[in-house]
Amino acid sequence: MIVYERAVKFEEVDAANIVFFARFATYAHEAMEHFFDPLDGGYAGLIMTRRIGLPAVHVEMSFSAPLHYGDRLRIETSVTKVGNRSAVLHYRMVRHADGALAADVRHTVVTTDLRLLSSCDMPADVRALLTSHMEGP
Amino acid sequence: MIVYERAVKFEEVDAANIVFFARFATYAHEAMEHFFDPLDGGYAGLIMTRRIGLPAVHVEMSFSAPLHYGDRLRIETSVTKVGNRSAVLHYRMVRHADGALAADVRHTVVTTDLRLLSSCDMPADVRALLTSHMEGP
Amino acid sequence: MIVYERAVKFEEVDAANIVFFARFATYAHEAMEHFFDPLDGGYAGLIMTRRIGLPAVHVEMSFSAPLHYGDRLRIETSVTKVGNRSAVLHYRMVRHADGALAADVRHTVVTTDLRLLSSCDMPADVRALLTSHMEGP
Amino acid sequence: MIVYERAVKFEEVDAANIVFFARFATYAHEAMEHFFDPLDGGYAGLIMTRRIGLPAVHVEMSFSAPLHYGDRLRIETSVTKVGNRSAVLHYRMVRHADGALAADVRHTVVTTDLRLLSSCDMPADVRALLTSHMEGP
Repeated sequence: MIVYERAVKFEEVDAANIVFFARFATYAHEAMEHFFDPLDGGYAGLIMTRRIGLPAVHVEMSFSAPLHYGDRLRIETSVTKVGNRSAVLHYRMVRHADGALAADVRHTVVTTDLRLLSSCDMPADVRALLTSHMEGP
Repeated sequence: MIVYERAVKFEEVDAANIVFFARFATYAHEAMEHFFDPLDGGYAGLIMTRRIGLPAVHVEMSFSAPLHYGDRLRIETSVTKVGNRSAVLHYRMVRHADGALAADVRHTVVTTDLRLLSSCDMPADVRALLTSHMEGP
Repeated sequence: MIVYERAVKFEEVDAANIVFFARFATYAHEAMEHFFDPLDGGYAGLIMTRRIGLPAVHVEMSFSAPLHYGDRLRIETSVTKVGNRSAVLHYRMVRHADGALAADVRHTVVTTDLRLLSSCDMPADVRALLTSHMEGP
Repeated sequence: MIVYERAVKFEEVDAANIVFFARFATYAHEAMEHFFDPLDGGYAGLIMTRRIGLPAVHVEMSFSAPLHYGDRLRIETSVTKVGNRSAVLHYRMVRHADGALAADVRHTVVTTDLRLLSSCDMPADVRALLTSHMEGP
């Protein structure tokens, strides 16, 4: 499990005064970028230099407590499945002040050659990092 | 079914040059705002005047074809379930040029008193609109 | 002058419950995309096919009335200057309900070869469109 | 001067593959939130508890070098003017790798009672913080 923390920003709420639900998918991606920091060149290097990406094929988000401006968010990222070309990342997004679960997100990605926009074998360093953060049984 | 069309905007793509996956949740909300246009005052009236909102409790998104800048998107919104306080909206998001399914989104919302941030009975006009767009068996 | 209208969206406000100031730069770009619709392939064709863009080199925004969710915005786009490689677009952003000026935006762009990221001569069709919407003296 | 650093995020670029110009206004606000961290409760406390905000009345942005995904941004925030109810913040946004100036932003804000949406006297702690970071002559 990798932990990533960040504050809710001023413009991330909506007209109901809570964090807009689509932002949680952005938060998930942000946590994934952080998860892949140990790669040589980080996630940006994977995308920009090696031209391999991890587009989503499936996302499930469950929301259980709202976030407001001023809240701090703790995202715990782990991995529930690693296949030949795909993986499932799992993000527990917790409201820092009281530990309430704000959102639970599952994110299935496929290693993709960005030049062709078609799936490709998972690079060894990507696989190693994912495998080392598999959730226990 | 209610149809909503819009172009992909210049800033909606990501560093992989395709529409960023979280945008599809924003597109879903935009289609939902459009779906509720027939309400008196529209969705904005529901939120700002009546202070009733429809926060998401669950979202599932499946992605099957990428969108690029310049693509046009057609979103077909229907309803798969209406409960006492919740409903499930279903969005088929189709790439206009070739009819390819770009994304399929299911969005469970709960009618919520925004002053209390707690669930409330579904207003009759909201229920009527949802019910009139139920998917066939 | 070209007019573009759009509603304020649910997620465009901030924690002060008014449209976030940076959104007005996005609105300006949206109005510019609309302004260039008459080009063959529109603005997207210019970017994606011809690989010519109009990055900003200078932006000035003055704000005089706030916008809320539910407001409708009318953007009047005109041109104040056309040079060899640059132009200045001017957007009057008016709150539809009462005609109040919400924001006044001036946007200097430079025609740019996107392959080289260096300035280039202004294409004739771009120049013709800009020139035809020059503000009067 | 207060320094704030952050990486360019995956979804902050546009279809020209450079950071979308409106993002720099968002970056400025983010740097301002960071600037006001020393306030009791931070900027969020000012907004949410004290209900005092700093809406923009004028923004000027000049762009001189593009940013790409993977770039790191260093924002140097200082203050050029403090009035009775207004102040001007100045952000030098520098590309970390080579020190190139990416954008220079000047941001005039007015202390505002968010309940009334009208200007109010500048709180003493806000004034003290602004004054302590005035640019030299």
